[in-house]
Amino acid sequence: MKKHNFSAGPCILPQEVFQKSAEAILDFNGMGLSILEISHRSKDFIAVMDEARAIVKRLMNLNDDYEVLFLGGGASLQFAMVPFNLMKENGKAAYLDSGNWAANAIKEAKKLGAVDVIGSSKEENYSFIPKIEEVGAEYDYFHCTSNNTIYGTQIKDFPKANTLMVSDMSSDIFSRMIDYSKFDLIYAGAQKNMGPAGTTLVVVKKEILGKSGRVIPSYLDYAQHVAKESMFNTPPVFAVYASLLTLQWLENNGGIAAAEERNIAKAKLLYDEIDRNPLFECFCVPEDRSLMNVSFKITDESKKEAFDNAWKAAGINGLNGHRSLGGYRASLYNALPIESVQVLVDVMKSI
Amino acid sequence: MKKHNFSAGPCILPQEVFQKSAEAILDFNGMGLSILEISHRSKDFIAVMDEARAIVKRLMNLNDDYEVLFLGGGASLQFAMVPFNLMKENGKAAYLDSGNWAANAIKEAKKLGAVDVIGSSKEENYSFIPKIEEVGAEYDYFHCTSNNTIYGTQIKDFPKANTLMVSDMSSDIFSRMIDYSKFDLIYAGAQKNMGPAGTTLVVVKKEILGKSGRVIPSYLDYAQHVAKESMFNTPPVFAVYASLLTLQWLENNGGIAAAEERNIAKAKLLYDEIDRNPLFECFCVPEDRSLMNVSFKITDESKKEAFDNAWKAAGINGLNGHRSLGGYRASLYNALPIESVQVLVDVMKSI
Repeated sequence: MKKHNFSAGPCILPQEVFQKSAEAILDFNGMGLSILEISHRSKDFIAVMDEARAIVKRLMNLNDDYEVLFLGGGASLQFAMVPFNLMKENGKAAYLDSGNWAANAIKEAKKLGAVDVIGSSKEENYSFIPKIEEVGAEYDYFHCTSNNTIYGTQIKDFPKANTLMVSDMSSDIFSRMIDYSKFDLIYAGAQKNMGPAGTTLVVVKKEILGKSGRVIPSYLDYAQHVAKESMFNTPPVFAVYASLLTLQWLENNGGIAAAEERNIAKAKLLYDEIDRNPLFECFCVPEDRSLMNVSFKITDESKKEAFDNAWKAAGINGLNGHRSLGGYRASLYNALPIESVQVLVDVMKSI
Repeated sequence: MKKHNFSAGPCILPQEVFQKSAEAILDFNGMGLSILEISHRSKDFIAVMDEARAIVKRLMNLNDDYEVLFLGGGASLQFAMVPFNLMKENGKAAYLDSGNWAANAIKEAKKLGAVDVIGSSKEENYSFIPKIEEVGAEYDYFHCTSNNTIYGTQIKDFPKANTLMVSDMSSDIFSRMIDYSKFDLIYAGAQKNMGPAGTTLVVVKKEILGKSGRVIPSYLDYAQHVAKESMFNTPPVFAVYASLLTLQWLENNGGIAAAEERNIAKAKLLYDEIDRNPLFECFCVPEDRSLMNVSFKITDESKKEAFDNAWKAAGINGLNGHRSLGGYRASLYNALPIESVQVLVDVMKSI
């Protein structure tokens, strides 16, 4: 039976990524060796890393002012790396508190210095994106989370920042056309739109590095990774390779522009049903609805069991909401086909 | 043509690990989903993580005083995590400088506080292990690198430490019978004897945590990972799964005791040839020779081309020495069969 995978991450990837990465585990590039057993210093793997770094810049339309890194440790490690690299001793940073992950980033930054939370929707259970027009030049940087995976909200208009602009784009990177060159640092755990769990993408404008004045542990120092072309130490080889395959699939299917069109169509199909069907209701306000994560609840608990049985019977997987919020969450990442959304909508209509 | 993979890491893993992990990428546990697309909070993956953590303790014969973690970032991140967690503010640590990786660990520890290098073979190009009988109680901890991957040396007798005992065992973990309970913290990048690149094993005695008095970034805080049973954030799912498969292979083939027997036989075969054959010579002193990495040079440069052509023609891969040392390095990790060593020895005899 065909599965329809709405998992919030790790999540569905293109089928060809599964096929090709399984083949590479048995025999990579016809070498007679597995990709798991070759040196990361071999020319075959260096070519993987180089192409993965290049394709990110092409997709995002970024010039050589930027460097691309594939690191380990997850976005949670970035929560610490950002202030280590960008917050000056006795400086301060501005953060937008738009959800759980944003709050975690704030908590880590506060360990290193002063943080002003310049907008928060925490008191309203993160049901909207706090709107900020402009961020002052008195801050070392401004940090925001572009998409809230749990509550299903997404920043549509980024504020004008008169300082460095930093964004955690873990859950909506490569999903929509935005001007990536407005950002000085972007990071994203791979396990949504970019690849499997195990690596984190960092896109950084070189000129901003080396200015915090702090003693930085080497692994936490972006400049060290930049100097070694993302090979400061053994990289997460397989996760980088599977990410490259996913990025190639994206580029071969029209790039971000075409992905955005598909994502808009998928989201419209599902939000239209939620708006039409009195049995379902979103957690968040309409204007901040995410194209990636549709978080919703059922309005009549007596029908919950029937709904749960029906979507499971339809081959749907990963629809339960985040444990902190409950309800449901349909994640519509790049690799999810619209046919899967139609199956979900048909189930919703049938209850 | 059959390949004989002597790579220093990432390196050969058991063939069944390649087979089973490729299958799991196409369909994991008969779920109809790839292991790359399932939630790390799914019961199927939690079972993987739980079993991987349990099997490490069984293999090392450790009791419940210890916790096992599978982290990201590589051993290079551990170089910073160790002092953050164990070095008190205004405290000091003792380090053994037995090679490049030990030196890197020292460099990172010095960023956080005082370090005494209580033994070093740096001036003799790391050709031996500095011998220390006892480490004083005035140190917060003692750190050593159990095996020197580059120079081919290995600690045979660990010093008696009157403080916490910490070891980077990246390149010889699970390869020999030692009393692991003498250590308070052991870490190891997976990509030698444990699995593919992308995760790092940490084995830590719980009672030593939470005592450094430092503000620690959450990802760098072992206690946070222990509290969340190695699921503080999204773990490197695939690397953990492939590590579990490798650990299962080890346990099903007699555990560490049997692996050690095989490793002794492989190393003896190769060192005997080096000692017999005037064309080859080890970089290190005989008493500190590693069972894992045999680093050697050719004594007659005029025969180098013939040797290089011969081993390549025999299907041997990954025999070049580390770029900082040159010469050759045959890595004899757990998964390398003795037949591959015999092929190399036959080539050495033929030149």
